[in-house]
Amino acid sequence: MANLDKYRVNPKKFSLKDFDTKDKTERSGSKEENEAELYQLASEINAYQDILHAEGKHKVLLILQGMDTSGKDGTVRHVFRETDPLGIRVASFKAPSSEELAHDYLWRVHQQVPGAGELVIFNRSHYEDVLIVKVHQWIDEAECERRYKQINDFERLLTETGTTIIKCYLHISKQEQKKRLQERLDNPTKTWKFNPGDLKERELWPDYIDAYEQALRATSTEHAPWYVVPADSKTNRNLLISKLLLNTLKKLDLNYPPVPDAFKSIVIND
Amino acid sequence: MANLDKYRVNPKKFSLKDFDTKDKTERSGSKEENEAELYQLASEINAYQDILHAEGKHKVLLILQGMDTSGKDGTVRHVFRETDPLGIRVASFKAPSSEELAHDYLWRVHQQVPGAGELVIFNRSHYEDVLIVKVHQWIDEAECERRYKQINDFERLLTETGTTIIKCYLHISKQEQKKRLQERLDNPTKTWKFNPGDLKERELWPDYIDAYEQALRATSTEHAPWYVVPADSKTNRNLLISKLLLNTLKKLDLNYPPVPDAFKSIVIND
Repeated sequence: MANLDKYRVNPKKFSLKDFDTKDKTERSGSKEENEAELYQLASEINAYQDILHAEGKHKVLLILQGMDTSGKDGTVRHVFRETDPLGIRVASFKAPSSEELAHDYLWRVHQQVPGAGELVIFNRSHYEDVLIVKVHQWIDEAECERRYKQINDFERLLTETGTTIIKCYLHISKQEQKKRLQERLDNPTKTWKFNPGDLKERELWPDYIDAYEQALRATSTEHAPWYVVPADSKTNRNLLISKLLLNTLKKLDLNYPPVPDAFKSIVIND
Repeated sequence: MANLDKYRVNPKKFSLKDFDTKDKTERSGSKEENEAELYQLASEINAYQDILHAEGKHKVLLILQGMDTSGKDGTVRHVFRETDPLGIRVASFKAPSSEELAHDYLWRVHQQVPGAGELVIFNRSHYEDVLIVKVHQWIDEAECERRYKQINDFERLLTETGTTIIKCYLHISKQEQKKRLQERLDNPTKTWKFNPGDLKERELWPDYIDAYEQALRATSTEHAPWYVVPADSKTNRNLLISKLLLNTLKKLDLNYPPVPDAFKSIVIND
């Protein structure tokens, strides 16, 4: 198994500046070799997902966070391209509805966590509730600190009841975002993804970096660690997240359920 | 577009006997050619799904029904193998929970119907409520007749509010089911799917055929027609369902949303 500890957020000494968005360490071969490795990893993820589902014991939650255009959708598309559509569930968290706002911010999130045998991907998550709301000062520092603790407690509940959590921060540069936003504007089949409001958030880039840095430091725990995924290269991003997920699945020691002895004598009539 | 009307259930003259489970009409080429066609169709479905989602106007619902081992799961895996996992949602209806049983049988179903821009697959559906419950005589004829009408009314509501419904009955023979059940028993990575209770249902085969025949006749409407999919051949099944779905998507006249004029003057700052 690849050693990926260097991407893990160590809360005792963590600064996003120490992580290069352009890092391509995981993209080690030619284009064809990288593509072949990605396919191989995707096939392995599919194989492990089948056992996860068959065994019906463990629960796996992959949380994806990152700036606009950092590649959350693309990760889902590529990392899970060989996975049976019946085997995964993607929960995308957008601006909360009025019913959701009438409850605490973890209420809608709790409803979407994986059940036994499930692999669930959070495309954005409860972390928006310590990011966007902090940057816009809709909550104050004290409330934000309370939430970090609430989130750690919530995630501990999940892990203590059988869930394995992997949290990935997709780390892109402001220049790379500019390029990707421009691509959306230039391609008529992508323009529908462009939201002029995203440009206002872009102006708050340093505030978002601060908010991410603080959130990752406060919530990278033993039970639910954060990983910083250099994501200016899409291939590097896909390879690294595939490996992180696969390492996690391998550590679970998944097994198909044993075949009951009684099944051996079964005869199926015409 | 392929003319697939011959698979459509005409309620005025319909008997399942007129449909051959072994029919392989759609599997017209060599193994390699069929595989290439399936890949081509899956790629086209993915392309149309992207526009469906971008436009955010139409709703598409694919309902899969059929005996145990008829290939509902396999259909999802193969027909949607090129579709972005973010682009589809699969709702699997199992034995109802006590909360679900406390409500009418369409309650849990209504919660899972597609929203604007969504493509949803029902793996089993509200049709179980006129099949298994009828075969076991948990409801009487009068109640079953009422339900056919309720289902037609419910599906009319959905179509009148923007949903396109395609209903597929996966038609296999009793011999083919025997073969597939035996395969589950013989393959330790498949045995977990084997449920001894399925053998009891298998003994009721003629009753199930009757119940399906009656249900398909009563609920194949102009707004939500049924198609009988010969499914002893998995390749024939996958090809036919892919074509039925693609025909449907093509008829919707899907378009990427127009690019607002204001977008043309946008400059993205560093």
